[in-house]
This record gives sequence, C-alpha cells and structure tokens, in this order.
Amino acid sequence: MPAIDLNCDLGESYGTWTIGDDSAMLGVVTSANIACGFHAGDPRTLLDTCTAAAAGGVTIGAQVSYPDLAGVGRRFIDIAPPDLEADVLSQLGALDGLARASGSRIRYVKPHGALYNAVVHHEEQARAVIAAVARYDPGLIVLCLPGSALHEHARSVGLRTVSEAFADRAYHDDGTLVSRREEGSVLHDPGAIADRALQLVHEGTITSINGKAVAISAESLCVHGDTPGAVGIARAVREALSGQGIDVRPFC
Amino acid sequence: MPAIDLNCDLGESYGTWTIGDDSAMLGVVTSANIACGFHAGDPRTLLDTCTAAAAGGVTIGAQVSYPDLAGVGRRFIDIAPPDLEADVLSQLGALDGLARASGSRIRYVKPHGALYNAVVHHEEQARAVIAAVARYDPGLIVLCLPGSALHEHARSVGLRTVSEAFADRAYHDDGTLVSRREEGSVLHDPGAIADRALQLVHEGTITSINGKAVAISAESLCVHGDTPGAVGIARAVREALSGQGIDVRPFC
Amino acid sequence: MPAIDLNCDLGESYGTWTIGDDSAMLGVVTSANIACGFHAGDPRTLLDTCTAAAAGGVTIGAQVSYPDLAGVGRRFIDIAPPDLEADVLSQLGALDGLARASGSRIRYVKPHGALYNAVVHHEEQARAVIAAVARYDPGLIVLCLPGSALHEHARSVGLRTVSEAFADRAYHDDGTLVSRREEGSVLHDPGAIADRALQLVHEGTITSINGKAVAISAESLCVHGDTPGAVGIARAVREALSGQGIDVRPFC
Amino acid sequence: MPAIDLNCDLGESYGTWTIGDDSAMLGVVTSANIACGFHAGDPRTLLDTCTAAAAGGVTIGAQVSYPDLAGVGRRFIDIAPPDLEADVLSQLGALDGLARASGSRIRYVKPHGALYNAVVHHEEQARAVIAAVARYDPGLIVLCLPGSALHEHARSVGLRTVSEAFADRAYHDDGTLVSRREEGSVLHDPGAIADRALQLVHEGTITSINGKAVAISAESLCVHGDTPGAVGIARAVREALSGQGIDVRPFC
Repeated sequence: MPAIDLNCDLGESYGTWTIGDDSAMLGVVTSANIACGFHAGDPRTLLDTCTAAAAGGVTIGAQVSYPDLAGVGRRFIDIAPPDLEADVLSQLGALDGLARASGSRIRYVKPHGALYNAVVHHEEQARAVIAAVARYDPGLIVLCLPGSALHEHARSVGLRTVSEAFADRAYHDDGTLVSRREEGSVLHDPGAIADRALQLVHEGTITSINGKAVAISAESLCVHGDTPGAVGIARAVREALSGQGIDVRPFC
Repeated sequence: MPAIDLNCDLGESYGTWTIGDDSAMLGVVTSANIACGFHAGDPRTLLDTCTAAAAGGVTIGAQVSYPDLAGVGRRFIDIAPPDLEADVLSQLGALDGLARASGSRIRYVKPHGALYNAVVHHEEQARAVIAAVARYDPGLIVLCLPGSALHEHARSVGLRTVSEAFADRAYHDDGTLVSRREEGSVLHDPGAIADRALQLVHEGTITSINGKAVAISAESLCVHGDTPGAVGIARAVREALSGQGIDVRPFC
Repeated sequence: MPAIDLNCDLGESYGTWTIGDDSAMLGVVTSANIACGFHAGDPRTLLDTCTAAAAGGVTIGAQVSYPDLAGVGRRFIDIAPPDLEADVLSQLGALDGLARASGSRIRYVKPHGALYNAVVHHEEQARAVIAAVARYDPGLIVLCLPGSALHEHARSVGLRTVSEAFADRAYHDDGTLVSRREEGSVLHDPGAIADRALQLVHEGTITSINGKAVAISAESLCVHGDTPGAVGIARAVREALSGQGIDVRPFC
Repeated sequence: MPAIDLNCDLGESYGTWTIGDDSAMLGVVTSANIACGFHAGDPRTLLDTCTAAAAGGVTIGAQVSYPDLAGVGRRFIDIAPPDLEADVLSQLGALDGLARASGSRIRYVKPHGALYNAVVHHEEQARAVIAAVARYDPGLIVLCLPGSALHEHARSVGLRTVSEAFADRAYHDDGTLVSRREEGSVLHDPGAIADRALQLVHEGTITSINGKAVAISAESLCVHGDTPGAVGIARAVREALSGQGIDVRPFC
C-alpha cells in the first residue's frame, strides 16, 4: 500500500496576531512544522499548537529560522555559523520543551523561509544547522529538499533525511522549484493540486512547467496553511490520496 | 562536615555586550543560574556559558525571567498566568537544549529580577512558574526564598526546594531582605561578607541591620557576579568557607 | 452645528501579520491613533498607514505604548518614569518621521492598552508621558479620559486635552467604564451603538449599565477597528451622526 | 587654517549593558554618530547621549542600521528596499525626537556596521537609505565612503555628502579598506594613528599597507570608541591635530 506524509507550517501566530487556521489544518496533515519563536510563535501559541498536535496524533517538527520577527524569517541573514548553530539549538530546545509539556516531543527539523532557501546551497549555514540537530538529538530527522546542501550534510553525519515535494508549486525540468516571483509558480486549483499529489505518489513524477514528467522522490508533501483556501486545498489533497487507497501517515 | 552551595547569576551578556566575568566566577561557584534569553543571554553566549559550566563541574540552573531585554528583567510585568507558564516552559527548554548540547543539563530553576521579587507574594504568577517547572521535569529543584509563594507552591506539587541566603545583603529582624533602595542594604567589604557566610553556615543565623541574630536556614548562598569586585568577594567567601573546613559543593 | 470627532486605533499590523481593515476604517474615521512600533506596527506598516491617512485627510495621532510586542501592549509594565519618558519620546519621533515623510505630521497623542489604563491613576507614569509630549512638541494634543491623571498632568503643563468617550462600551453610574472582563461591557449592535453616539452628541449623556443617564463630555468618540464587524459599526455610527446633521470632523 | 572633523560611534549601550566611555569620547570628538535603537541604544541611553552631546556642542548624526540587536547590526540582512526605507525613516525620526528633546537635532546620517558595508556596492539598499534621508529632511548630510554607491545616490538626489577616512585602519593601494579579517588591518599605536591623521590632513594621503602614499580626500576622521584604549587613541589624535594648528571642528 503506497504511503505519503502531509506536512504544513503551523504555530505562526504571534501575540494577538493570528495567521492560518491551525486547528483545521491539524485535522488534515500528519506532520506539523511548528515555529520556534524566532520568526513567529510566542510561547503560548506554540504550547497550544503542540498540545493540539499531540491530541490529534500529528507528528511535531521544529521549524527553525533566522531571528527575524519583523521579516517573519523571509530575509537572508548572514549569521556566523557558530551563532546560527546556537540559535538552532535554542529553538530546538524551546519547542521540545513545549512539546514535552504537551505529552509529545519533536521528531524532525525543517528550516523555515530564507533559511530553508539558504541551506540549499550555503554550505556553512547548512553545516551549522546540521551540527545543532546532531548535537541536540541524533535521532531527529531532517525534512529537506533532495540534493540540497542541508540534505548532504545531514547524511554525512548520519542523520536520517526525508525528502519533500510541493504539490502546489511549479517545477522546472531539472526538478528545482520555479521561483515564487515568476508567474505560474504557485497553483491554486484544489483539483489540479490533488492530481499532482496523486501523480507524485503513483508515478514518482511531477509535470514540469514545460509539460515534462520529472522524476521526484518524496516521502512527504508540503501543503500551505496560510493562504486563502489553504484548508480546502489541503483537504482536497488528502481526500484524493485516501480515495485512491494511499495511506496518509507520518513519515515517523 | 558542614556544607553549602554557592550560586551566581551568569550568562547575562548579549551580543557584543558583556557583563561580569563568567569565566572567573565559574571557577568559584558551584551552581550557575544561567539566563535563558528573555532578560539576557543570546544563544551563543548561553551555549558558551553552559559549555564552560559543564567543563568546570558547575551545576546548571535556569534563570527564568519576564520577557524584557531592555529592562533586563528588572521591571514587573503583569503577564497572564497561562502566558507566563508558556514563557517559562520555553525558557527551560531552550536552556536545557543548550546545556544538553554541552554534555550537561539543567538541574534547578531560579526566577530572575522582578519575577523573583513578584513570586515572593504574587500567588498566580508563582503558581504559573511552578506549573511550568513541574510540567517540564518534576525532578527539577526550585531555588528560592524560604517562605515565598514560590516556595509554598513548589512544595505543594511535590517539587524539591532549596532555600538561599545572601551574604552581601542586609536583613531585617524578621528575616526579610532590606530593599536595595535603602542605605546599607548591600555590603561591599569582602571580609565582612565572608564572616557573614561563616556565621550562616556555622550558626544558622545572620546579624540583622539592627544587630540581632536572625535564624536563616539556607542550603545555598547567592553571590553576585556583575558588580565591581564581584570576583574578589566571591573568592573571599569561598576561601573563608573552605578554610574552616566547610564543604562548598552543589546542592544537587 | 454640533460636531464630533471619530478616532480609531490603526497601524497595528506587524510584518506579515495583519489586523483590522485599516484602509476601510480610514474612510470612516477622522482621527487615526497610529501605533508607534512598541506594541505593534513595523515601520513599513506605519509608513503605509500614515500615507493612507494623509491621503484621506485623516488626522494622525501617536498611539504610544509600553515596549511589548508579544503582549501587544496590553500588560502593565512597571517602567521607571525616566525610562518611560524616553520610550515615549522615541515613539513620538519615529511616528512623526514617518508621518512627515507622508506629507503630514502627528497632531496628538493617545496612550495604548495597559498604558492607557495605567495613566488613569498612576501619577508617575502619567507625568512621564506628559513630560515627553511637552518636550517633543507643546503643540501636541493629549486624547484621554476626562478625570484621569494623564488629563490632569497635561493641563498642569499647559497641553491641550481632548476627552473621548466610547459608544460601544458600557459605563457605570459614575461615568467610569465597565471592565472588559464583566459581562455586557462591550456592545455589538451597530444600531444601539449609533444611538448612543447620537445621545452623547445631542444630550451630552450616555445611559449607564444601570439605565441612568450619565453626563459625559467628549469631543471625540472612539470606535474599534480590530473586531469582527468593526467597519460596519463605525460606518453605522458615522452615518447616524451625519444623517442628523452632526459635523463629523477632526478635533484639530 | 586646515580643518578636520572627528566622528565616533556613540550611544551603543543597551539597558544595563554598557559599551564604550561615551562621556569621555564626547569631550574629544566633534561629531557623534548616535545609534537609533535598531542595533543598539535603548531610548533612555539615546536620550542621555543626545543630551550630553548637545551640552558639549557635539554635532549629532543618526547611525542607522539593520534591525538586529543580537548581531549588533553587523550581519547583512537582505531587506527589501521599501522595508529598509521605512526602517531608516523610523530611526531618523526616533533619534531626532530624542535630539530635539535635548535641545539639538540630527544633522547627518551614517549607516552602521553591515549596512555601512552593504551600501558601498548594494545599489538597491543604498538607494533606499538615500530615499529615506531625502524624504525625512533634504538638509541632512550623508557621511560615507567616497566612491560608494551611497555616495553616488546621495549626490544624485542633491544631498550633501561628507567623506570620511579611518586613521586606525589599513588601506589598500586603491584606497579601499583592508578587511578587518586580515592581519594588520587595524592599528593600535596611538602615536602611529595620530601621525596618519596628520598626514591625511596635511598631505591628503594615507600610507597603504604596501607602503604607498594613497590620495584620500576626507572632511572627517572616524575614531573608534568601543575598543580598549579608545579614548587614549582619540585624545592622541586630537592633540596631535590641534598641536599642529589644525582646526578640529564639526563638518557642519
């Protein structure tokens, strides 16, 4: 029986500012990438999100970030690797503390925003993130893009990696993502997105922006939680997968 | 053989701003109350402090605080108890993550600054701090003032408490501290401070500001690390204690 | 021809977190209490809000606050008066810089949240806020509750004050507000709220929670912008006032 | 009579964390680059620094920065230009508010740390900084490196620029600074630094790291305030200049 994980960014509210419908998304996804306070997520929000995830049987991952509330972690920061390593350790500990208080714990790590993009190619920052993860708990899994520097460094120190794909994002023929700045980079039609999810699981391919079937290997599908219609899209994906006998379950 | 612990606030630098001589103090004290980033301590500073404490065999405690960098945690904040509980959980987790990465872990909790003062009498905030500690790890010890609300709530949920005294602070006849705003509230003479430490361990008393011997029971003595001459005073206290055959060792 | 000002809190988004429909509210109110970055409002948000207010002919006021993003300024902080004075000066300057860049400038000051509540009775903090306003520009107006310490100190140094009332809040017989924690403290029916606004302007009274007509003198009515239906309520108030020949215009 | 300005970074303390001896430096320099709260400087510190500068007749400049307290503004941040423009406007306004409350005002702008380095070549960020300065007050002067993108953009919109040189930094033959990461990049000997200051004023050259006299045109000399011996070096420079009949005075 084929299987796939669905992951989503959650816990990104801050103080009275709310974003996304975490409660609804936790009923759809199997893995929650929960913010750690550096780009979003005050402690109360994070505790509540961890508690809801634990109650719903959703696996908790730490979405570590640059320290940048005003930029919500979407701006590259040229942090020295030893500082970044400490920043990541601090975030892993903070979220794990909240997760443990909720009767769960963190199982994986996924960088957020600009850090996610940087560690695709920034060797030193990728190495710093991996050093922090390995020091914190070598049993943690790294959720990342296949072929990224983060992926390579994780494997080189013996961390398990899980590759993810994006059903709602356009891909180039070489399997890389089309930049969000380009037209057509993000799909919005729930049916089309669900079809791509099915294609990914059944055939191991995604149709590129040029119409070519590109081989993509992924154990997890990322769905977005902070856009209009996000919950509807995520539900459509999940229902399409389940309807075709695909087991939607956490990768760990 | 009589014994006493020496504790000190450490890890209170931030970015390029440094305060205190942590390296020297870690050679004198047996328990380090390390900041958790809310009132002081960027992750890199905290990681380095934990690493040095672990290397020196100094016990690590989490000095939890209100979120207030600009005020260095010295201003009362009227935080709702559930928010405070989450704030404390987040701090415990963050510091414990850094301590674990240093091959150690946190063993006790001591509130900082305005929070320390508030939980002497503020029942709801004291209860929130204790709820966080108990949820995080019921094996953690609470370092506090005897008779404080924090002390009472810790005991009521079964947490071990350790009482502390201040050799360099003046006391009233009823065993409470003379406010820092009053003249004569803080002692500066290393010899006089060391004598008070000896009196406390040998006789279980401190001479009050009125000259009366007041019974004070304490397993730990707090020495300050951020004042001029701090290291000299701490060394004088330690040498006086050791010189009289008192075992200066962590309370856990 | 009777006249009244309508004021509303605006510019309270932060980074990607949005709150309220500032654009719509700027089409309804005549005075905008714009956040200054301490409780909400990143510089880009504040600049955009100032620009829109200037374009719409809406008077700009500085909504100064305690430094507390995580608590959105709703938690009392026991700040020393000289620190609070500097905090307020910094906020006035920052917002005025953004307002000037938008072709306008700040005309009045209104404390936010917990600071608003504190300076009703906290003499030292009220004096510090007023000292900052007077030092920054003695031509600034203070928008406040009649009878508050802030009101008294403003008048004592010669600042012009403008009193405000809340059409959607319940009042006690003595003219003070019913706490938000009590049932019935906030009205939600646009028609009822509009009727109270009319009563206030025409008769100078508001009907208390006990049904008594209480004399309230106010040059400005505060409407809320961050609740569901906020825009609808504000429009209903404005239309009711205009429909009865009341001139809805800025107080300066 | 030849003349030169001496500028120094000041107001970089934060809360209880102090750095540099601002009081002593204000007795030596003629222009104070005062932090604006984004990389350092809580409002109280900034107000006190402005007050002391005003009392000492020292010209006040705004040292604008990326928003990065933990990194003290020394890390490049990839901020979108419109956000950077608003950030700079907010900083100019905040510091000007504090300066005005001190009976002075800001007269010039100098970017700090990583922003200073970025706007040497980063056209979009340089343009954003200049746009903010021009919008805030076209009478402000931009203190910068000759030949930098910042310099070019300032001139293109009609802002006056003032070029600065560093007597304690090594230069390449092409007049650019030797990176701080390279050995010999920073001079520490007060006599040698003072000699370079004299050479700069008298001959318009600085001897490069290769021993070549390089033409450097500068109206202001930057001295550092946060290193050991900083005050001694600054005094040595000032005394050497004054001793040779050079007028040490603000550039505006």
